[in-house]
Amino acid sequence: MDEDIVTAGIIVIGNEILSGRTQDTNLQFIAKHLVGMGVSIREAQVVPDVKSVIVTTVNDYRSRFNYVLTTGGIGPTHDDITTDCIAAAFNVDVVVNADIEKRIRSRPAPDAVLASRLRMARVPEGATLIDNPTGGPQGFSLDNVYVMAGIPLVMQAMLSTIVLSGGAIVRSRSVTAHLGESEIADDLSAIQEAYPRIDLGSYPFYRNDIYGTSLVMRSTDESALDSALEELCAVITKRGQTPLDIERG
Amino acid sequence: MDEDIVTAGIIVIGNEILSGRTQDTNLQFIAKHLVGMGVSIREAQVVPDVKSVIVTTVNDYRSRFNYVLTTGGIGPTHDDITTDCIAAAFNVDVVVNADIEKRIRSRPAPDAVLASRLRMARVPEGATLIDNPTGGPQGFSLDNVYVMAGIPLVMQAMLSTIVLSGGAIVRSRSVTAHLGESEIADDLSAIQEAYPRIDLGSYPFYRNDIYGTSLVMRSTDESALDSALEELCAVITKRGQTPLDIERG
Repeated sequence: MDEDIVTAGIIVIGNEILSGRTQDTNLQFIAKHLVGMGVSIREAQVVPDVKSVIVTTVNDYRSRFNYVLTTGGIGPTHDDITTDCIAAAFNVDVVVNADIEKRIRSRPAPDAVLASRLRMARVPEGATLIDNPTGGPQGFSLDNVYVMAGIPLVMQAMLSTIVLSGGAIVRSRSVTAHLGESEIADDLSAIQEAYPRIDLGSYPFYRNDIYGTSLVMRSTDESALDSALEELCAVITKRGQTPLDIERG
Repeated sequence: MDEDIVTAGIIVIGNEILSGRTQDTNLQFIAKHLVGMGVSIREAQVVPDVKSVIVTTVNDYRSRFNYVLTTGGIGPTHDDITTDCIAAAFNVDVVVNADIEKRIRSRPAPDAVLASRLRMARVPEGATLIDNPTGGPQGFSLDNVYVMAGIPLVMQAMLSTIVLSGGAIVRSRSVTAHLGESEIADDLSAIQEAYPRIDLGSYPFYRNDIYGTSLVMRSTDESALDSALEELCAVITKRGQTPLDIERG
């Protein structure tokens, strides 16, 4: 792939994902969203609610990728430690943000409840808020690290307000064939070699009693994609099948 | 959590997960399966089809966790590089395994197709096979690293044949309350402090127009779990609500 790609690393924070209790869907949602901004996810990590692990991962990712997005761990309870971990990673203090505090205080609640909710007003010093269109407490960013809630609806609301400075947009071409992967493996290798700037993936499937393979190409070079797609279709036709479900993304 | 927990790290290999094309479900399936064996997933990483990244991650995980399980990248095409990466991580050669070769050759196919399929007979030297009850080519293990297919049905078939030497089994107790997280945050902190061997998680939800919080406790100590569950239920009752959906796992 190209060197001018803008990259991101995603950190999914939460014991509930690692225990199998919760099926993560945030990674896929974020990936689809970032593609449209010209940002490609390079790696993703699911980490437990353990400070040392979160801090290490944040520092590793923020040095290696243009952007880091995290989900989870910014609620009001004892297992919500993301804010403190980000502050530790950047070696800054945690402060109370007046804007978040105002939003929290605008919802009446008993004193004890309010005290817990106000935990969510704590942000690392120097953070910029990420708006939360659901009306709840905001997320925040610090340098190239964006910290969002874990609840999918809240995460999606926050993500919709984030503007990243993306690079060339990665486009895709895909086509499906009722052929086994092995039948076209050599042809795929040849096409991949001929188009080094394209990332060609091959995904076998079995549905409705039919074996097939989905072929997906990604690149920032649209003319290369179109030309490679033609070659792929020719390969499928040569093997006696019809290229199906051609999509341009 | 306890020090006698047997740990695992999961490596999900494939560009299609990071691009958002495919929703990974293997991590959750593996997590639920391993819990029953007394093995806890500590971290999981989603990595692209890039050799250096896969090799680094495998070597990191196999040194830090008791077991490493990988999914994806063992098919017949050019983007299936997991076998070569595992061999590189262990600094061993790749050899052709006679048992896998026999299984592949038992399905008649044209020469070119057979040649591609035989790529799947390649394993790192010294590997042990993981059976594949679907009838397809087997996976393999090397030392504490278990290499499985990415297609969920095939992965699940392979996983069903793997026996790991687990530790104490992590049990769970969960209860739901129609209370906001903030309303019980202080009580949860107190219970977490009183039971350091329990991992207490709090997960807010909003469904059918009702706000609530699911509370999940995990530990190898069942009597501590039962006692902490009683305290949790008392907290919920004290707040004027009924403890709902109590589950013991």
